[in-house]
Amino acid sequence: MPVLDIFHSAVRNALEKDGWHITHDPLHIDLADIEIYIDFGAEQLLAAQRENEKIAVEVKSFLGSSTVSEFNLALGQFINYRFVLSEVEAQRQLYLAVPTETYEIFFRRQLIKKISQEQQLKFIVYEPVSEVVQQWIM
Amino acid sequence: MPVLDIFHSAVRNALEKDGWHITHDPLHIDLADIEIYIDFGAEQLLAAQRENEKIAVEVKSFLGSSTVSEFNLALGQFINYRFVLSEVEAQRQLYLAVPTETYEIFFRRQLIKKISQEQQLKFIVYEPVSEVVQQWIM
Repeated sequence: MPVLDIFHSAVRNALEKDGWHITHDPLHIDLADIEIYIDFGAEQLLAAQRENEKIAVEVKSFLGSSTVSEFNLALGQFINYRFVLSEVEAQRQLYLAVPTETYEIFFRRQLIKKISQEQQLKFIVYEPVSEVVQQWIM
Repeated sequence: MPVLDIFHSAVRNALEKDGWHITHDPLHIDLADIEIYIDFGAEQLLAAQRENEKIAVEVKSFLGSSTVSEFNLALGQFINYRFVLSEVEAQRQLYLAVPTETYEIFFRRQLIKKISQEQQLKFIVYEPVSEVVQQWIM
């Protein structure tokens, strides 16, 4: 399995252990004027539901050589996906799934925390090996 | 000259024709906790001044195969750079330099316009061949 798919599948399994039902993988979003959004890049959105709660999840591995470059991309995607979701399915909340180690080392930095708060990012912090959700941060 | 540098240099020249003095190329930003920002990726920030006005410019070529993926990255970078600039040099305004053709085809779409407005993006629309600034959009 390609490495990116391993992380994607770890998040899937972690959510299922947490009582979520995976409803779409990948989640496709239809919107007038939006064939441009068919290309979601290598890391596609997951959708899940638990009781009445619906979420979409942008899975990130942060395996690349520059965490800050990956954060730039993750942030831009998050803002764009959230905007599109708000137009088509406003009740579905978007989360950024980040491995525990990346969260502890990178996202706890003062600057990154401030940006994340300002942009109201929501996180699912997951353990990629044991495949469990370690924390929900909103 | 590598293609990305051609666009970078086109924006430099266009700004100079417009009466700007290039003060930093690339612009390095120092901030405690911010060695992570040394890596600005392949497309580095330019800084320029005209009378009392100071700007930083994120130059984009939009040459890749997926404009939406490039927009995701450009948006994330813009938000992060703007945040860092606001901490160290609040009077310097950040602009995203976009080729005319990309601006006309992509950034005039309803959805992309809405996102750009919501995120208060500022644009320099430039002609990469004739090396002129075609429009300032703020």
